[in-house]
Amino acid sequence: MSDWKTYLDREQPRFVEEFLDFCRIPSISSLPEHAEEVRRAARWVADRVAAAGMEHVEILETGGHPMVTADYLHAPGKPTVLIYGHFDTQPVDPLSLWDAEPFDPQVREGRVYARGASDDKGGMFAPILAVEALLATEGTLPVNVKFFFEGQEEIGSPTMGPFVTANRERFACDMVISADGGQWAEDQPSLALAFKGLCAVQIDVEGAYRDLHSGMYGGVVANPIHALAHILASMRDADGKITIDGFYDDVRDLTGDDRARIAAVDFDEARYMRDLQVDALYGEPGYTTLERAWARPTLEVNGIWGGFQGDGVKTVLPNEAHAKITCRLVANQTPATIADAIEAHVQRVAPPGVRVAVEKLANSAMPYEMPFDHPGNAAAAAVHRKLYGKEPYFVRVGGSIPVVGMFQEALGAYTVGFAFGLADENIHAPNEFYRLSSLRRGQEAYALLLHELATQS
Amino acid sequence: MSDWKTYLDREQPRFVEEFLDFCRIPSISSLPEHAEEVRRAARWVADRVAAAGMEHVEILETGGHPMVTADYLHAPGKPTVLIYGHFDTQPVDPLSLWDAEPFDPQVREGRVYARGASDDKGGMFAPILAVEALLATEGTLPVNVKFFFEGQEEIGSPTMGPFVTANRERFACDMVISADGGQWAEDQPSLALAFKGLCAVQIDVEGAYRDLHSGMYGGVVANPIHALAHILASMRDADGKITIDGFYDDVRDLTGDDRARIAAVDFDEARYMRDLQVDALYGEPGYTTLERAWARPTLEVNGIWGGFQGDGVKTVLPNEAHAKITCRLVANQTPATIADAIEAHVQRVAPPGVRVAVEKLANSAMPYEMPFDHPGNAAAAAVHRKLYGKEPYFVRVGGSIPVVGMFQEALGAYTVGFAFGLADENIHAPNEFYRLSSLRRGQEAYALLLHELATQS
Repeated sequence: MSDWKTYLDREQPRFVEEFLDFCRIPSISSLPEHAEEVRRAARWVADRVAAAGMEHVEILETGGHPMVTADYLHAPGKPTVLIYGHFDTQPVDPLSLWDAEPFDPQVREGRVYARGASDDKGGMFAPILAVEALLATEGTLPVNVKFFFEGQEEIGSPTMGPFVTANRERFACDMVISADGGQWAEDQPSLALAFKGLCAVQIDVEGAYRDLHSGMYGGVVANPIHALAHILASMRDADGKITIDGFYDDVRDLTGDDRARIAAVDFDEARYMRDLQVDALYGEPGYTTLERAWARPTLEVNGIWGGFQGDGVKTVLPNEAHAKITCRLVANQTPATIADAIEAHVQRVAPPGVRVAVEKLANSAMPYEMPFDHPGNAAAAAVHRKLYGKEPYFVRVGGSIPVVGMFQEALGAYTVGFAFGLADENIHAPNEFYRLSSLRRGQEAYALLLHELATQS
Repeated sequence: MSDWKTYLDREQPRFVEEFLDFCRIPSISSLPEHAEEVRRAARWVADRVAAAGMEHVEILETGGHPMVTADYLHAPGKPTVLIYGHFDTQPVDPLSLWDAEPFDPQVREGRVYARGASDDKGGMFAPILAVEALLATEGTLPVNVKFFFEGQEEIGSPTMGPFVTANRERFACDMVISADGGQWAEDQPSLALAFKGLCAVQIDVEGAYRDLHSGMYGGVVANPIHALAHILASMRDADGKITIDGFYDDVRDLTGDDRARIAAVDFDEARYMRDLQVDALYGEPGYTTLERAWARPTLEVNGIWGGFQGDGVKTVLPNEAHAKITCRLVANQTPATIADAIEAHVQRVAPPGVRVAVEKLANSAMPYEMPFDHPGNAAAAAVHRKLYGKEPYFVRVGGSIPVVGMFQEALGAYTVGFAFGLADENIHAPNEFYRLSSLRRGQEAYALLLHELATQS
């Protein structure tokens, strides 16, 4: 019996063909007419997981798109890890910007071009292949492994929260390993310590019962757009610090070590500004750019509208104006508290003559933060050192990944990010691709990680 | 030969039939496909003016829609008055809200329902009929009269300025009498002493070269909507006073007499608020509501837009935001000075990280103000006393009527408002109507006015 690495080398051509097959399934979760394709992807995954040697393979109904689970629990005394990934994809529009059909994968210069290749079919396929190689060559796995592959990540995993809670026993684990995500660069590994939470509101300002003539009523009747501008301007000071009462109350301050880990990341601010085509950055004083992006809560207006938006001039004093706001939250803020604080602020500063309502929108996510020295991070860093010859960056992510908060809440388990996507792979955009070198690296990394985790217990 | 009043009484049925004919012409000036109908209305007016006995009737090309002129200059030593009106109309949409076809006039309960009936076909028809009655019964007119009926008022009289300037001699007069406008109430006459001027700008704020992810870039890259809210909020203080440097510099302060004339107007503020369905009014402190509406300059945002305006949540940090602003100006402000002041203010307060442009929009109008004791006002007030048994209110108008500034500049003549529309007649809205009693009153009023003007010289 050869070792697992030789097995991977030998089977790679077959794995690539299988990966192309997987990419051929148009499992777009947001399109109802593709629901059967998402289910077909679930069957493909279930079959492939079974072929790899995993046990108790099942397609489970979630109330939304189905998910696939399996386990291999034959390492008594060793940790149990739940490996997470998703087999659904984003939509493909605008189709005209693709160089080839999104679900007819093309291999060019060591890259597979297809919708979902990087996000997350390539990511989630790697641990399946690693497990197959270990079982084929060692007859067992070094730790206890559960698979958790879902089909609705790209639509925000709407039914996953109640589903995971209802299946706590089945998914119980010491840690989650996420095969969705990426590394800092092709030659620089990273580990994510935090994702921001989210809360969203809409502000509606109403004035008179109808649009008015700006000549007849200007200067006399309150203008909802002016009122809204006043409300929005009052939420941040000139430097960009949020001035809503209580907004920062629950924020866990960054420690010196936290800040040192962020400062250790090689970040070229001049290039960042050049890429964005801005001549200045902007935000809360007292923090570096990466600290603001990664570890400080934010409030951004996502959209605003009211009155006349056409060409030329319409001399109207409009009777309503609206804005949508999302806040990104950090530990230990909660979406409900922040939404309440925004509402109280808006009502307090609303000028006379208008009626103002704050609608709390359903989208929300708890902020997520895991200990720097979590054993999963230690194991992943050990693998990074072997594969890259480098220590990982410890990064934080300004975006929100609801599923990590869900696992933490329902299973009491932190999630270690262990995936090999790279920033240039056009995820959620035309011409998405995944590097075959990343697919190969992921397989080896997962085999190493499972062994590493076994040594840590 | 009967007197002119008996003549009007006797001919009224014919006049009403003719008025309905006039209203049947769909002379919508804003629709290119109706240009020939506007021209047909000009021919109808020219024919009718000639039938009334006026001389030198001509349809003149203006570079836009044609206009109709005529004169009767046989009162040596008496004043020359130019009577203004317009035969073009607003569009009719939304057609579904009309109870009958807009250009198939219906007579119900003493009212003629048709687009243009009140604005301004009914208004401009009255002086034509008054002149006919005077010529038919007295053989001449008591003063020198010129008619000036245009076909592009509803699109802002775009070619009228250069046209009037080029025809100064032809239109030379001692005063203009406007047959476009209205009275305070059916039982309360009024004279307008001022119209506000207008200047219009668009503010464009740009950030990064594309929309950004609000999680990745929030708190780091300037948000154009926040920048725009800050800019707009900085333009007025909490009470609604404009805080743009120099905004009030050229304003002619109201005298005690000006304020007394405004205070003499019976204005029910509680009812005004109830009608608008607002629980407070809002604006520059130190002035009454009518003073603010009529005699103080204003700045209103007419529209605002940027980012996501759909249902639900889109976590975008948009890369642009826009607002349209119009200011209403009073004597002696000028549109160019105010537009410059806005631009300077915007550039001064624009926060870092965004590019801001102020586009000066073409629409502008000089503010207009005439002396309270102008002889035309004295003559009109004398007629008001005869017809209503009341002194007129001296009002000012928050709206802008470019043509009055044009006459003042090109002809050196003030314009006396002498028209009989009422506020409930749905002008610019579905089911526009004009009262036959107003049509009759207008004829008598114009006959009286021309005699009154003859006694004043």
